[in-house]
Amino acid sequence: MTKLWGGRFTRDTDANVEEFTSSISFDQRMYRQDILGSMAHARMLGRCGILTAEETEQIIQGLTSILADIEAGNFTFEIALEDIHMNVEKRLTERIGPVGGKLHTARSRNDQVALDTHMYMKSAIQSIATLIHGLERSLLEVAEANLDVILPGYTHLQRAQPVLFSHHLLAYFHMLARDFERLQGVWNRTDIMPLGAGALAGTTFPIDRRMVAGELKFSRIYANSMDAVSDRDYILEFLAFASILMVHLSRLSEEMILWSSTEFAFIELDDAHCTGSSIMPQKKNPDVCELVRGKTGRVVGHLMAMLTILKGLPMTYNKDLQEDKEGAFDTIDTLKFSLSVYADMLKGMKVNSQRMRQVLDDDFSNATDMADYLVRKGLPFREAHAVVGRAVRLAIETQRSLTELPLSELQALCPLFGDDILAALRIETCIEARNSEGGTASAQVRQSLTDCHSIMQLQQTTIDMYTKSNI
Amino acid sequence: MTKLWGGRFTRDTDANVEEFTSSISFDQRMYRQDILGSMAHARMLGRCGILTAEETEQIIQGLTSILADIEAGNFTFEIALEDIHMNVEKRLTERIGPVGGKLHTARSRNDQVALDTHMYMKSAIQSIATLIHGLERSLLEVAEANLDVILPGYTHLQRAQPVLFSHHLLAYFHMLARDFERLQGVWNRTDIMPLGAGALAGTTFPIDRRMVAGELKFSRIYANSMDAVSDRDYILEFLAFASILMVHLSRLSEEMILWSSTEFAFIELDDAHCTGSSIMPQKKNPDVCELVRGKTGRVVGHLMAMLTILKGLPMTYNKDLQEDKEGAFDTIDTLKFSLSVYADMLKGMKVNSQRMRQVLDDDFSNATDMADYLVRKGLPFREAHAVVGRAVRLAIETQRSLTELPLSELQALCPLFGDDILAALRIETCIEARNSEGGTASAQVRQSLTDCHSIMQLQQTTIDMYTKSNI
Amino acid sequence: MTKLWGGRFTRDTDANVEEFTSSISFDQRMYRQDILGSMAHARMLGRCGILTAEETEQIIQGLTSILADIEAGNFTFEIALEDIHMNVEKRLTERIGPVGGKLHTARSRNDQVALDTHMYMKSAIQSIATLIHGLERSLLEVAEANLDVILPGYTHLQRAQPVLFSHHLLAYFHMLARDFERLQGVWNRTDIMPLGAGALAGTTFPIDRRMVAGELKFSRIYANSMDAVSDRDYILEFLAFASILMVHLSRLSEEMILWSSTEFAFIELDDAHCTGSSIMPQKKNPDVCELVRGKTGRVVGHLMAMLTILKGLPMTYNKDLQEDKEGAFDTIDTLKFSLSVYADMLKGMKVNSQRMRQVLDDDFSNATDMADYLVRKGLPFREAHAVVGRAVRLAIETQRSLTELPLSELQALCPLFGDDILAALRIETCIEARNSEGGTASAQVRQSLTDCHSIMQLQQTTIDMYTKSNI
Amino acid sequence: MTKLWGGRFTRDTDANVEEFTSSISFDQRMYRQDILGSMAHARMLGRCGILTAEETEQIIQGLTSILADIEAGNFTFEIALEDIHMNVEKRLTERIGPVGGKLHTARSRNDQVALDTHMYMKSAIQSIATLIHGLERSLLEVAEANLDVILPGYTHLQRAQPVLFSHHLLAYFHMLARDFERLQGVWNRTDIMPLGAGALAGTTFPIDRRMVAGELKFSRIYANSMDAVSDRDYILEFLAFASILMVHLSRLSEEMILWSSTEFAFIELDDAHCTGSSIMPQKKNPDVCELVRGKTGRVVGHLMAMLTILKGLPMTYNKDLQEDKEGAFDTIDTLKFSLSVYADMLKGMKVNSQRMRQVLDDDFSNATDMADYLVRKGLPFREAHAVVGRAVRLAIETQRSLTELPLSELQALCPLFGDDILAALRIETCIEARNSEGGTASAQVRQSLTDCHSIMQLQQTTIDMYTKSNI
Repeated sequence: MTKLWGGRFTRDTDANVEEFTSSISFDQRMYRQDILGSMAHARMLGRCGILTAEETEQIIQGLTSILADIEAGNFTFEIALEDIHMNVEKRLTERIGPVGGKLHTARSRNDQVALDTHMYMKSAIQSIATLIHGLERSLLEVAEANLDVILPGYTHLQRAQPVLFSHHLLAYFHMLARDFERLQGVWNRTDIMPLGAGALAGTTFPIDRRMVAGELKFSRIYANSMDAVSDRDYILEFLAFASILMVHLSRLSEEMILWSSTEFAFIELDDAHCTGSSIMPQKKNPDVCELVRGKTGRVVGHLMAMLTILKGLPMTYNKDLQEDKEGAFDTIDTLKFSLSVYADMLKGMKVNSQRMRQVLDDDFSNATDMADYLVRKGLPFREAHAVVGRAVRLAIETQRSLTELPLSELQALCPLFGDDILAALRIETCIEARNSEGGTASAQVRQSLTDCHSIMQLQQTTIDMYTKSNI
Repeated sequence: MTKLWGGRFTRDTDANVEEFTSSISFDQRMYRQDILGSMAHARMLGRCGILTAEETEQIIQGLTSILADIEAGNFTFEIALEDIHMNVEKRLTERIGPVGGKLHTARSRNDQVALDTHMYMKSAIQSIATLIHGLERSLLEVAEANLDVILPGYTHLQRAQPVLFSHHLLAYFHMLARDFERLQGVWNRTDIMPLGAGALAGTTFPIDRRMVAGELKFSRIYANSMDAVSDRDYILEFLAFASILMVHLSRLSEEMILWSSTEFAFIELDDAHCTGSSIMPQKKNPDVCELVRGKTGRVVGHLMAMLTILKGLPMTYNKDLQEDKEGAFDTIDTLKFSLSVYADMLKGMKVNSQRMRQVLDDDFSNATDMADYLVRKGLPFREAHAVVGRAVRLAIETQRSLTELPLSELQALCPLFGDDILAALRIETCIEARNSEGGTASAQVRQSLTDCHSIMQLQQTTIDMYTKSNI
Repeated sequence: MTKLWGGRFTRDTDANVEEFTSSISFDQRMYRQDILGSMAHARMLGRCGILTAEETEQIIQGLTSILADIEAGNFTFEIALEDIHMNVEKRLTERIGPVGGKLHTARSRNDQVALDTHMYMKSAIQSIATLIHGLERSLLEVAEANLDVILPGYTHLQRAQPVLFSHHLLAYFHMLARDFERLQGVWNRTDIMPLGAGALAGTTFPIDRRMVAGELKFSRIYANSMDAVSDRDYILEFLAFASILMVHLSRLSEEMILWSSTEFAFIELDDAHCTGSSIMPQKKNPDVCELVRGKTGRVVGHLMAMLTILKGLPMTYNKDLQEDKEGAFDTIDTLKFSLSVYADMLKGMKVNSQRMRQVLDDDFSNATDMADYLVRKGLPFREAHAVVGRAVRLAIETQRSLTELPLSELQALCPLFGDDILAALRIETCIEARNSEGGTASAQVRQSLTDCHSIMQLQQTTIDMYTKSNI
Repeated sequence: MTKLWGGRFTRDTDANVEEFTSSISFDQRMYRQDILGSMAHARMLGRCGILTAEETEQIIQGLTSILADIEAGNFTFEIALEDIHMNVEKRLTERIGPVGGKLHTARSRNDQVALDTHMYMKSAIQSIATLIHGLERSLLEVAEANLDVILPGYTHLQRAQPVLFSHHLLAYFHMLARDFERLQGVWNRTDIMPLGAGALAGTTFPIDRRMVAGELKFSRIYANSMDAVSDRDYILEFLAFASILMVHLSRLSEEMILWSSTEFAFIELDDAHCTGSSIMPQKKNPDVCELVRGKTGRVVGHLMAMLTILKGLPMTYNKDLQEDKEGAFDTIDTLKFSLSVYADMLKGMKVNSQRMRQVLDDDFSNATDMADYLVRKGLPFREAHAVVGRAVRLAIETQRSLTELPLSELQALCPLFGDDILAALRIETCIEARNSEGGTASAQVRQSLTDCHSIMQLQQTTIDMYTKSNI
C-alpha cells in the first residue's frame, strides 16, 4: 500500500516490519479522541483562514461520518496504514477527495498522537477518580455498619493491640484519599494541550492553539514545542500513581485472604466473588483478592517498562515512544476492574464479628495497657515494660492469659498492681483508652468518619470539574 | 547486651541476627530529627501533665547534650542497640537516670521512626527543590547567552527541522518545572505528622498531637493511627518523582554525550568535568554525563525495590518497612550530586555555535518548509509532501542539497515553485517561520524565557515556605 | 453457567468477576498443548487400568475431534468456562457423554496448567533458539562480507582505537552465544514434567508419571508435588534470559541508530526497514531499531511483574500465578519478531566502508599506538602516556592530526621518536598490531570467525535435540 | 592531585566531580583480586619478554608488600586516585620507582576492572554455593527430624489436602537445588578471563592471555576484546539468579511468619531469632523472616537497576558500567546473610506437631479423598466432585465435619457410600494414599530424601571444583 510519506523511498516497507511497527491494533482505542481532535483542528484552521469555510465544512462532515461508522462497527482498520491517524485520514480522503489532505496542514503525527493520548488519559482519569470515590464509599459504609466490631490489630502479623474494625478500614480510606490526591497531580500534568507543536519546532502556519485547547476543554497548552512532542511524564506519573494504588489494594487483598482463611475466619466472602476447585470439592477460594494482589505486578511492570523505554532517549520524538500506550491502557483496565470489584466485594462480605472479638480473650493484646497502667501509677515506662514482659512470660509458661493471673502473683512482680487492673485490661477498655487524636477509641473513629465524608465531598467537586473538562 | 524489650525473652538475640536486623548503620543519619522530635515530644508530655516540669527539663537537657556530642563526633553508635532511637534513649538514661525511660511514654518506635523519616524527607525535599531551581537557572543562563545559536532539531536521531539552541534547552527547563511540581505533591504528602499513633492504635495518655506538629513545623497530622505507622507512600512517591527526574537527566546526558562526540562536535565540556584514559592519551571522556545516565538505573532500582517490599504487606508495621531508608537516602544523595554537577557543567561548557550552524547547510532540515511553501501556493499538504519527497530523492541521488536544485528542476516536479523558494529555504527563515505559540521562532523563545523567569519566582516562594517549615 | 466446581456454592459467580478471573482470552493459545497433554494423560490412565480401553479410546477420539475443530476455526471459547482446560473438557463431555468427566481423574487444573505451560515454553524455546542461531548467522555473513572494513572503536562514545567492522560485529555474536547458553539453562529447568502432582499432594490413583513424560518428550519429572504446582522459576528464568537478550539488542539498536545518523553515516538501512514522516518529506527513520530498543522496556517490565507477583506467596498454588502467562507470551512474540527482523535488516543494510575509514584520518585513534611505540623504545608506559598526551594537546591547539606533527616537534616532546613513527601511526598498522588473542588484527578475526562457526555447529546439535523433544 | 591520564588536559578535575566519579569507596573491596591479577599480569609480561626478570621481580615484591599493608590495615585509599587500580599503582610507583609504571603495559583499566570483578564474583559464587548447600542441609535435617508430622497443605491459603511437613519442606529443597543449578550457569559465564583486551581492541604487545588465565584459575578467555571490556552479562545473570533465590526465601518467609502467628501457631522461632517491641511487652516478632522477605525488594531493585543501566549503551566501555558493582556487592552480602541465618533459624525453631495435626480434625482437607472414594466405586470424577460439594455444604450448614456425617445422610447424597468411607477419610489414610511418584505418602517422601542427598553430593563436587578454581 502506498504510504503517505513515501515520496523519497524507492522500496516498499517489508510486510513483517509493517506489522511490527504498526500501532493500529492498540491505538484504535483512541479513535474518538483522534476524530474529535481533528475536528477541533479543522475548525481552528478554518477560523484562522488556513482552510476555507467550505473546506472546513467538508472535513467536519467527513469526520462525523467516519466517527459514526466506527461506533456502528462499520470500519475496518488496516495495519498497512500504521496507526489510527492514518487510518482516519485515508478514509477521509477517500470520502471527500483531496481536500482531506488539507487536514494535516500545520500538524504532524507527533503532536497529533500526543493530543489523542492526553485526551484519552484525561477521560481515564475521570473514570478512575470516580471509581476510587466509589471504593471509599464502600469502605465508609462497611465501617459504619460495623462500628462496634473489635478485632486484633497486628504488627509483624503478631497480635499487638485491639482495634475497632472500622478504624482498621479507615486506614485504607486514607490511603485511597492520598491516591486521589496523587491522581489530581497526574490530571494537572495531563491537562496540557500539545497540538501546534508540529513535528518538533512549531508550525509555519498562523494557527491559534488556545482556540483548540478551549474547544477540547484543556486548561493549559505546552509552552515548548519540543517538550510537547517528547513529553511522556504524564504517563510515567500515571503509572507511578497506579502502582502505589495497586500496592494499597495488594495490602488489602493480603488481609482479605488472611481473614478468609480457616485460621483467621474473620470474614466470609460472598459466593459471587469466589471460585471453587476442579478437584477439591470443599474449596472456596478468594480468587479475586489473589488476582488483584497478583495484578499489582503487572502494573509495576508497566511502570518499569516505561522508565526503561525513556531512559537515555535523546530529543525529541523517537519511535520507542510508541511503546507508551499498551502498558497505560492495560493499567487503566486493571485499575477499573480492581476498584469496582472491591467496592462490590466489601459490601458483600460477611463480617464474623463474634469470632473477631472472641480471639482477643485469650491473647496478650492488652499487655501494653498493663504497662500503661503501671506508668500511671508512677513507674517509668521502660520499667513498666519490663515488669509486664515478665508477667507475659509467666502467663505463657502456665498457659494463662494476663487477666487470669491473680493479683498476688502480679504484685509479686510489682507492688503497684491493684484491684483496678482487671478493669484496665478489659478489651473494651483498651479500645476506649486510646482516645488520642486519630486513635481507635470509638469517639475518635466517629469523628474520623465525619472527616472522611468531608473529604468525599471535596473529591466530588473535583470529579465534577473533570466531567466538565472532558469532551 | 540487655534489650529494652527483653522481659518476655529467655534467650539473647543471635549476634548475627543482631547485626542483620540492626538499622543503626544507616538510620544514624537521622540523629538530628530523632533528637529534635524527642524534645518536642518531651515538651508536649510536660505541657500535658504527663511529665513534671522537672522531668521535662532533665530530658531536654540530656537530649541537648547528646545532640552536641554527636555533632562534635563524640558519640559511638552501638549495633546491639538496634537503631538511632534506642541508641539515643540508652545514652539518655545513662546520663539522667531512670527518668530517661519516661521519654518513651505515649510513644512507640513505630511512630517515632515514622516521625524521624518524615522530618528527614522534608529537609531533603527542601534541598532538592533548591537544586532543581539552580539547574533551571543554569539552563536559562545558557539559553540567554546563546540566543541566536541554531542547531538541527532531531526526531529518530535524524535531522528534522532547525531549532534555536535556546529553544532546545528550554524543553529541559519545562521538564524540570514539572519535576518541581511533582516534588510539591511529595511535600504535601510528607508534611504530615505521625507521632501519637503509638504502636498502631493511638495511646492511652492525654497527649496533644497538634502541639508536637506545630513545634516541628508540620502542617497536618495523620488522621488514622494505623495508617500513620504503616504509610510509606511518601517514600514511594519521592522515589517515583526521583525516577522521572533522573530519566530527564538521562536524556540530557545522552544529548551531552552525543554532542561531545567527534561526529557531532556541538559542544566541548570543560576539562574540570571530564576524565581521561589510563591507556589512550587522546581521550577526554564525558564521564559525568555517563555516570548520571547510569545512575538513573540506581534510582529506578530503588523505586522497584520499595514497590516490591510493600506489595502484599498486611497492616500495620512489619519489619520489611525498615528497608525503606537506604534506597531513599541513596536517592537523595544521587539527586543532590546530579543536579548540582549539571548546574555547573552546563555553565562551563563551550558551545560550538559555528559548527552547529554549518552542518545545517548541506542537509534536508528545510524540507518541511518546502512543503509548507507549496501549501501556501494552494497544494493540499499531502500532495506537497509527495512533491518534496521526490525533490529530496533527486537531491540525494545527485548529491546536492535542496537549495542547489535549480528552479527548472523544481518546476518539473511541480509548477508552483517560484523564485521565492530560495528565501523560503534559508535556515534562518525556517526558524523565524515557526512563530506559532511555543514554536522555535526567536520571538516565541524570548517570550518563553520571560515566562520561565515567572515560574522561577513562584518556585522561589515555595522554597521559602519549605525553609520555614523545616526545623 | 453451571461451574464444574459449584457443588458447595449457593450463589453464582458475579459476571464481572467471571470475566476478570477467566484466563481463556489468553490461555487458549495453549490449546494444542492442553489437548495433547490430555491425550497422554488418558492413555496413561488406560494403561494403568484406571480407565478401561474403551473409555480411553472414546476420550482420545473426542479430544482428536476437538483439536481438529479448533485448528479449523470451528470452536467458540467461552469466558464462563474460565480457562482452556474447562473449555476443552466441557466440550468433550458434550460430545462423548459422562465418560468425559473421567478424564479429570488423578489430575487437577493446578498440575494441568503447569503441564500446558511447560510444553508451550519448550516449544517457544525451540523457536527462539533457532532465531538466535539465525541472527548469529547474519552477523557472521555481514562480518565475512566486510572483512577489510575499518571503523573507529569507541569508549565513552569517544573515538578510542580503530577496529575491524567484522571484529565489532563479532562482539554481538558472542553476546548472542551467551544468550544461547542461558537459554539452554532455561530449557533444562523447563523440560520437567509436572503432571501427577494433583492439586498439590499427589494423587490417590496408581498412575505412571514417567509414561506421560515419555510420551510428551520430557526428560525429567518434578520430584515434589507441591513444588510442581507452584514452581514458576522457569518463567522467571525465561524472562531474565529474554531481558538480557533484549539488552543486547538494545545496544545493537543504539549503534545502528547512531550509525544511520547524518553525523556518523556509517550505514544506510534498506528502505524496507525504515519508515518516513507524515510531515517531513526528507525523513528516513530507523524505526525498527528504535522499536526494538523500546521493546526492551516491555520485556524488562514483564520480568519485574513476575518477580513482584511471586514475592511473598505462600505455598502452593495461588490465583496470583495465573498472571504468569500474558507477560511470557508477549515476551515470546517480542523476541521472535526482534530476532527475525534483525537477521534480515543486517543483511539488507549498506555498509559505508569508505566513510568509516575516512573519518579515521583526522582523529586521534592512533594515540595509543604512539605511546606503545615509545614503550617499545624503552619508556615506561606511564611516561609514554604523558608524552603523547602533550602531543595530542599540541595537535588540537594547532588543528593538526598526530601524523601531521613533524618529527622535530615530536622529538622536542621526547627524543625517542624516530622516522618510523609515521608507519607506526598508520591506521592499518594499528589494526594489525593488535594481534593478541581476541584482538582486532585480521588474523585474529579470521580465527575468531572459524571458532564462531564451530559454536554454531554445536548450537545446531542442541536445536536438533529440542526439535526431537517437542511434540 | 596529578592524574595518571592528564597529559592532554589543561585544567584539573572539579573536586566534586572527582568524588562523584571516583569508585574507590566501593571497589577497594576488590583489592586482593586487583593485586593478585596484577601479579599474574606482571609474571606473564616477564615470561613474554616484555618486562625483564628484574623488573618483574621488583613489581611482584612491591605488590606483595602493598597487599600485606592493606590486609594489616596500613593503607589509606585516596579518592583523587579514582579507583582501586590507580590507588595500588600509584603506591607501587612510590615504592619501586618508575618501573612501577611498566605494570600498565599491555593493559587498560577497562580490562583490569573486568578481571578484578570476574575474580571477585567467582569467589562470591563459591561462598554462595556453599551457603545454599548449607541451607539445603538444614531443610533435610528438619524434614528428617519431623518425618511423621502432618499439617494442612494449602492452595489459595485455604486448606486443601493434608501433607507431610517434611514433604512441604522438600518443596523448598528443590527450589534451592534449581537455584544451585542456575548459579552453575552464572559461574560458567563468569569464569572467563578478560585481561589482554586492552582498552577495547587488544594490545600491540606479544602477550600470553592463556598463561594469565591459568595462573588465575580461569578455564576460558574472552574470544573478542570488545566483548571482554563491555560484557556485564555475568552480573545481570547473577542478579537474576539472586532475585529468583530471594523470591524463594520470601515465600518461605511468608510461611514462617504465617506459621508463627497466633492464628496458625504451627511453629515457634527461637528467641535468638526474634526481637521484641519497645512498647508492647508481649511481642515476639519474626523480624528475621520479615527482613529477608523485605530484602527481596532490594535484590530485585539491583537487577532492575543494572538492566536499566545497560539498556541502549553503545559499544564498548562507558562510564555507566561503573554502576555495576555496588548493587552486586550488596546482593552478595544480602544473600550470604539470608542463607546463613535461615540455615540456623530452621534448625532452632520448635515444630508444634500436635497443633498442626489437630487443626486437621475439623476441617475439610479430606474432601478430595471422599470424591476419589466415589470414583473408585465407579462414579465419573466430575459427578463425584459434585456429590462431595453437596456433602461439604451440608456439613458447613450443620457445623459438622465430613466424618461426622452419618452414613445415612451420605447415602442420601449418593448410594455408593459404604461403611469404609470413615477409614478413607482418616487424615493418615489421605497422606498414605497419595503414593504417586513425588506425592506426599511417607514412602515417597523417604525416597525423595534419599534423592536429595544424592543431589547434595553432586553439589559438593561442584563446590570443590569452585574452591580449586579460585585463588
